[in-house]
Amino acid sequence: MFTSGKLRIVESVGEGVTDLQPGDHVLPIFTGECKDCRHCKSEESNMCDLLRINTDRGAMLHDGRTRFSKNGQPIYHFLGTSTFSEYTVVHVGSVAKINPQAPLDKVCVLSCGISTGLGATLNVAKPTKGSTVAIFGLGAVGLAAAEGARISGASRIIGVDLNANRFNDARKFGVTEFVNPKDYDKPVQQVIAEMTDGGVDRSVECTGNANAMISAFECVHDGWGVAVLVGVPNKDDAFKTHPVNLLNGRTLKGTFFGNYKPRSDIPGVVEKYMKKELELEKFITHEIPFSEINKAFDYMLRGESLRCIIRMEA
Amino acid sequence: MFTSGKLRIVESVGEGVTDLQPGDHVLPIFTGECKDCRHCKSEESNMCDLLRINTDRGAMLHDGRTRFSKNGQPIYHFLGTSTFSEYTVVHVGSVAKINPQAPLDKVCVLSCGISTGLGATLNVAKPTKGSTVAIFGLGAVGLAAAEGARISGASRIIGVDLNANRFNDARKFGVTEFVNPKDYDKPVQQVIAEMTDGGVDRSVECTGNANAMISAFECVHDGWGVAVLVGVPNKDDAFKTHPVNLLNGRTLKGTFFGNYKPRSDIPGVVEKYMKKELELEKFITHEIPFSEINKAFDYMLRGESLRCIIRMEA
Repeated sequence: MFTSGKLRIVESVGEGVTDLQPGDHVLPIFTGECKDCRHCKSEESNMCDLLRINTDRGAMLHDGRTRFSKNGQPIYHFLGTSTFSEYTVVHVGSVAKINPQAPLDKVCVLSCGISTGLGATLNVAKPTKGSTVAIFGLGAVGLAAAEGARISGASRIIGVDLNANRFNDARKFGVTEFVNPKDYDKPVQQVIAEMTDGGVDRSVECTGNANAMISAFECVHDGWGVAVLVGVPNKDDAFKTHPVNLLNGRTLKGTFFGNYKPRSDIPGVVEKYMKKELELEKFITHEIPFSEINKAFDYMLRGESLRCIIRMEA
Repeated sequence: MFTSGKLRIVESVGEGVTDLQPGDHVLPIFTGECKDCRHCKSEESNMCDLLRINTDRGAMLHDGRTRFSKNGQPIYHFLGTSTFSEYTVVHVGSVAKINPQAPLDKVCVLSCGISTGLGATLNVAKPTKGSTVAIFGLGAVGLAAAEGARISGASRIIGVDLNANRFNDARKFGVTEFVNPKDYDKPVQQVIAEMTDGGVDRSVECTGNANAMISAFECVHDGWGVAVLVGVPNKDDAFKTHPVNLLNGRTLKGTFFGNYKPRSDIPGVVEKYMKKELELEKFITHEIPFSEINKAFDYMLRGESLRCIIRMEA
C-alpha cells in the first residue's frame, strides 16, 4: 500500500542538499542511491552501499538519531522513508525527483514492487519482440513483470500460479496462457517445455518459493534461455539444479528493485507512464482514507488487492 | 591432443556441398553448426540441434552408416570428426574454413578446449578493462580462460588450483595471483572476497567439480559479479546456493565451447592468433609422432602436458 499526497512534495531541504528544492515532487524509495559508492558508480549495480535496504536501521545515518519522537520516545524510520505520515524526514539519497505533472496518487506505486517486477523484465530478462516469457507468481510484482513482457512485445506470456482466481485479472496485464502446477502430475518446468518446444526464452520468478525458483530456471530453453529471480526466499531455502542445465547455455540472474537505480532511473519510469507506454491504473485496485488503513492490510492478507492507495487527507 | 597435417586440408567434397572446395584449410570441430536449426539461427546459442556434441552417434547422419570399416567391421566416428588419422570423412557442418596462411600445427588446438576457455571469458564473462577475474582450475581450459582475461585487460587474474605446481606456468597466461584452497581453513570464496574488497568482478570455473562451481559463483561481487561455468560435472552433482546470493545482483551462466559457433566464429579466432592478439604457442608443451601416441596420454594423465601435437607424418 502507498500513501498519496503532500508527503511527496519537498517541504524543506537540509544543509548541503543542492539537487532538490522546496516544491519539487519526489518519490521516496525504500532503497537509496548515494551516487558516490562503488555500486552507484557501477553501471551494473543498484545495491548502494550507503542506502541499500536495511530493515534494522531506522535512524539517520550521520548521527544515528531518529527524526521522530513522541513524549520523548524515539520513533524509528521504516525502510529509510516512513511514508504512512503527512510529513517525513529522509536522506536525500532516498528520494527520486520526478516530473511535477505526474499524478502522485498513481505514480506512488512505482516506489516498490511495481518497479521491481517491471524492471526484472525490462532491465534484466530483456525479452526481445516476439519471444516467450513465463511469469511465476501473479501477485502485483509478477503482474508488473508481465506488464514488462507486454511492453517488450512478447508473443506469449505464460502465467504460473497455484491460485486460479488470479488468472482472469492477469489477462489485463498481457498474460496469454495459464498454468496451475496443481493441475499436473509432472513438474511445471516439463509442462512449460512441452508447451513451448523446449522451453521459454525468458522467465521471471516472483513468488519467493525455492521450488518455483528451480522450476523457473529449468523451464527456459537451452542455448539462450534467461531466468530472473525476484521473489524473496526464506532464510533456509536453497536453489539447486544440475550444473548441466547451466552448461547447456542457460543463464540465471537475480535482481533487486528491478535493477533500477532509484534516483537515476525512476524518473524515467514515471515518464514511461506519462507517455502511456506503461499502465499503472490497473495495479490500483483500492483506495481508502488513512483512518481505515487496517482494511488495506486485510485486503492484502486475503489476496484481494494488488495495490491500495491510502489517502492521508481526511 | 591434436593431430597436425593434411587431415585439415579438404581432399574432396560430397554432393550439395557448396561452401568448401578441395584445397581449403579447415579445422574439424567436435560440435557442429548446421546453420539451419533454431540454435544456429539464434544469435545467442551455439548448441546446434543437428550436430551438437554426441558421443553416442559415430555414424553419418543421413544414412546411419559408418564411413570407415576394417575387414567388414564398422569403425565408428569419435565426436563426429575422428582426427587421429590422415584422412577422415565429416559432415560439412563439422569443419570451419580458416585462413590458409594459418599454421595448422598451431591453430589445430582451437578445435576444442582452448576455444572453450577463451570464449568463456571473451564471449560470456566479458570482463571489462581493469576488472578482477578469478579462474578456477589451471589446466589448459582454465589457462585459456586466463588468456581471455589477459586479452580483455583484466587488472588482476586470480588462479585457483589444488595443485601448486601449476602456479609457475600460469604466470605466462597472465595469472597474477594464486590461491590454493588447501592453504586455508575457510571457504575459498571467502578468501577471494577478502582479497578483493567483496569479490571479483568475474569468475570462470574450469574444473567440473561441483564445490568449485559453488565457490566460483559465491566469490563474485554482489551487484555486478558474473560467474561462468565451463567444467563438465559428474552425473550426480548438484549446484546449490542460497537464492539471496542471486537476488543480490549476481549472475550465473554456463557455456559450451565458449559460446563460439564453430563455422561462423572460429575463423575469427584464427585471425586473432594471426594478428598476435592471441598466443597459442604457450599451450603446446609437447609434440610427438603418431607412433608414440600413448606417450601423449601418459603426459595428460600425469598432468605434465597442456596440449600435445601428434604428427601424423612418419
